Amino acid sequence: MLNFNFYNPTHIVFGKDTLQQLNELVPQDARVLVLYGGGSVQRFGTLDKVKGFLEGRAVFEFGGIEPNPKYDTLMKAVEIVKAEKINFLLAVGGGSVMDGTKFVSIASTYEGENAEALFSYGTVPESVAKCLPIGTVVTLPATGSEMNNGGVITSRLGKLAIFSPKAFPVFSILDPELTYTLPATQVANGVVDTFIHTVEQYVTLPTEARFQDRTAEGILQTLIEIGRKTIDEPTDYDARANLVWCATMGLNGLIGAGVPQDWTTHMIGHEITALYGIDHGKTLAVLQPSIWNVRRTQKQAKLLQYAERVWGITEGDADTRINQAIDKTRAFFESLGIGTHLSDYGVKPEGINDIVVALEKHGMTGLSETGDVTLEVSRQILEGAM
Amino acid sequence: MLNFNFYNPTHIVFGKDTLQQLNELVPQDARVLVLYGGGSVQRFGTLDKVKGFLEGRAVFEFGGIEPNPKYDTLMKAVEIVKAEKINFLLAVGGGSVMDGTKFVSIASTYEGENAEALFSYGTVPESVAKCLPIGTVVTLPATGSEMNNGGVITSRLGKLAIFSPKAFPVFSILDPELTYTLPATQVANGVVDTFIHTVEQYVTLPTEARFQDRTAEGILQTLIEIGRKTIDEPTDYDARANLVWCATMGLNGLIGAGVPQDWTTHMIGHEITALYGIDHGKTLAVLQPSIWNVRRTQKQAKLLQYAERVWGITEGDADTRINQAIDKTRAFFESLGIGTHLSDYGVKPEGINDIVVALEKHGMTGLSETGDVTLEVSRQILEGAM
Repeated sequence: MLNFNFYNPTHIVFGKDTLQQLNELVPQDARVLVLYGGGSVQRFGTLDKVKGFLEGRAVFEFGGIEPNPKYDTLMKAVEIVKAEKINFLLAVGGGSVMDGTKFVSIASTYEGENAEALFSYGTVPESVAKCLPIGTVVTLPATGSEMNNGGVITSRLGKLAIFSPKAFPVFSILDPELTYTLPATQVANGVVDTFIHTVEQYVTLPTEARFQDRTAEGILQTLIEIGRKTIDEPTDYDARANLVWCATMGLNGLIGAGVPQDWTTHMIGHEITALYGIDHGKTLAVLQPSIWNVRRTQKQAKLLQYAERVWGITEGDADTRINQAIDKTRAFFESLGIGTHLSDYGVKPEGINDIVVALEKHGMTGLSETGDVTLEVSRQILEGAM
Repeated sequence: MLNFNFYNPTHIVFGKDTLQQLNELVPQDARVLVLYGGGSVQRFGTLDKVKGFLEGRAVFEFGGIEPNPKYDTLMKAVEIVKAEKINFLLAVGGGSVMDGTKFVSIASTYEGENAEALFSYGTVPESVAKCLPIGTVVTLPATGSEMNNGGVITSRLGKLAIFSPKAFPVFSILDPELTYTLPATQVANGVVDTFIHTVEQYVTLPTEARFQDRTAEGILQTLIEIGRKTIDEPTDYDARANLVWCATMGLNGLIGAGVPQDWTTHMIGHEITALYGIDHGKTLAVLQPSIWNVRRTQKQAKLLQYAERVWGITEGDADTRINQAIDKTRAFFESLGIGTHLSDYGVKPEGINDIVVALEKHGMTGLSETGDVTLEVSRQILEGAM
C-alpha cells in the first residue's frame, strides 16, 4: 500500500424526504445564491421546494449553468456574489452545476485581476482564494462532485480540472427520488462515469491495497447489477439509491487512497467533449476498452484481477481473459444504450489528429500510472476506439 | 437502503515515516498534553520521537491510561488540562488511550460539577461540552477510535460508551511500522475486534445496501487473508498495513451508513470484561458464534449471504450453510490463538447469572437490530458460549 492522506469533511444527508433539512443546514442569516442548470429543476418543482426550505434568508438565483460549465457563464455568477454580498452557495443539479459552483466559490474570493489565472494552480491554495461555503442538492448521480473538492471547467484554455482544499461542500443532500425525472441517457451516462472513475483508481498496478481493491470491485459489481434496472425502472428506490451512493463513493478519495491512479480516460475524454460535444460519459465508454487493449501489458495483473473478481472470468491464458473482460465491459456499456465507438458519434478517422493536437496543447502527455501514455500511445488508443 | 447521515472530518495520514508530520499537524503555539498507556510507547522510543517532532510547543505528559480506561484515571488528566491550560490533546496508543483522550476532551470542557453526569447523555452535545481538539498516533490497530467520535469508559456506573459530535480526532497518524512491536495476542485481539465491528454492521437484516455490504465483505475477506500472517510476520508491511486500514474502516461510519446495526456482541462483551477482566477482543470471539446460533432465524438472509460471499459456502440447506459459516468463523478466531468458549477463560456456568444481572442493571435489554435480545435471550447466548 502506498502512503496516503485521506480527508473528506463533507456531511452527507442521504435518503427520502431529506430536502427539508436545508432549513437546518444553511445558516439562518446566510445570503444564499442558488445555482442551477437548465430548466429541469424549475420544471419538476425542485427549485421551488428548495426556496421554500430557505425561507427567511436572502435568496438569489443563478440559472443556466450548461453541461461542461463555461468560465464566461460562471463569471456572471461571480459578479452577483460580489454585488449582493453572497456568503453561501447552494448548487442544485448534477456534476456541471456542482463543479461550476466550486469555481464560483474559488473565483469569488480570488483577489487577482483575471480569474483565468486560477487554472494555472491545479490546486488553488487558501492563501490565493479562501472559498465560500457550498452546499449541494444532487439531482444527477455521476460525477461524485458532491463529496470532493474538484471541478472541471471549460474556458478558452480548454476543459481543465481545478481543485481547492477548501472547496469540499459543507453538506450534500442526496435524495434518490429527486433523480427520478432524469432522462434515461443521463442515467446511463452516470452509470458509465461512475464505472470509469472506479476503474481509473483500480485497474492500474497491484499494491496490496486489499480494502481499496475490494471496495472498488464492490462498486463495479453493484453498477453491473443495478445499471440497466435503474434505467428501465427509474422509480425503483433501491436501485437508484445504490447508483447515487456508488457515484459518490467512486470519487471521494476513498478507493484512490494508497493506490496508483490512471486518469487517462478522463483526460482524453475531456478533449473529445471539448472538440466534438459528445457527452462526457459517452467519451469514457468509447475510450476505456481501447485503453485496456493497448495497455494490457502494463495493467496485466489488475486486468486479470478485474476479470476474475468482477466478471468471474478464470479460464484461458492471460490475453484470453483480458479480451473477455474487455468484451464484457463493452457489452455492459452497450446494454445501457451507450455506443462504444467514436464512429457511433460521427467522429471520422481524420478527426483523431485534432484530438492528439489538443492533448499536446494542454500538456496531456505522459499520462497514466506509469507515465508512458505518450501522444503516440494516445493516437493508438483513439484509433482503436474508432 | 435506510436514510442516513455520514460525516467524518478526521484527516488520516497513513504510511511509513509519517510521524514527523506531527510538526505540521499540531499548531505551533499549542499547549499539548500527550496521553499514553503503559510503558511500551516509552520502551520502544515512540514517545521520544513524538516529543521530538513537537519541539517548540509546551508539552506535558500523562501516562498510565489502562486497558478499559477508568474514569478516575482520566479525571487526573482533566486536572492537568485545567491547571496547565492545555489546548491540544495528543493520544499515542491504541483504543484505550484514544477513547480515554476523547473523554478527557469532553470532560475538560464540561462546566458541570460531576463529570460522571456526562455518561447520562450518550451523545454529549456541544452546548454541554465543547471538546478540546485531539490528534492521535495509532500504535494498535483494533478499535477504529482514530476515526470516530466515540469512546468506551469504565466507571462505577459500568463500562459505558460516550460520544460527542466534536470528539472526532482532527488528525490521526497511522504508521503500520509503529505497531510492529505489539505482542501477538494484542494483534490477534485487534483482528477479532475489527471482524466483529464489521459483522455487527453487516450480519443484520437485508436492506439492499449493496455498496455497504460489499465493503463489509471486503474487510472480512481481507482479515481472513492477512490475520494469521500479520501475527506470524509482524514486520510484513503490507499485511500489517491492511489490518491497520481495515480496523479504521470498520468503525468510521462508512459500512454502517444506511443499514441496521446490532451491537449485542459488544454490549454483552463489555459486561464480561468488566466482571472477569477478559480482553475485549476475546469476549467478542466467545460471543459471536453463539449469538449467530441463537439468532439464526432473525439473521438468516444475511447469514446466508455472509456464508456465500465471505466463505464460499453454497451447498446444503439454510441451517447447514449457517452452521458451516459459524464453524468457519470460530475456526478462524481459534487459528489466531483466541479461545472461543467462556470456559477457556475460567468462567464457570454459575458465573453467567452475574453477567445477566449486570446487563439488566445497565439497561442492556432489547438489544439487536430487531430489539428482541431480552435478558432471557442473552442468557441463552451466554450458555451457548460456555
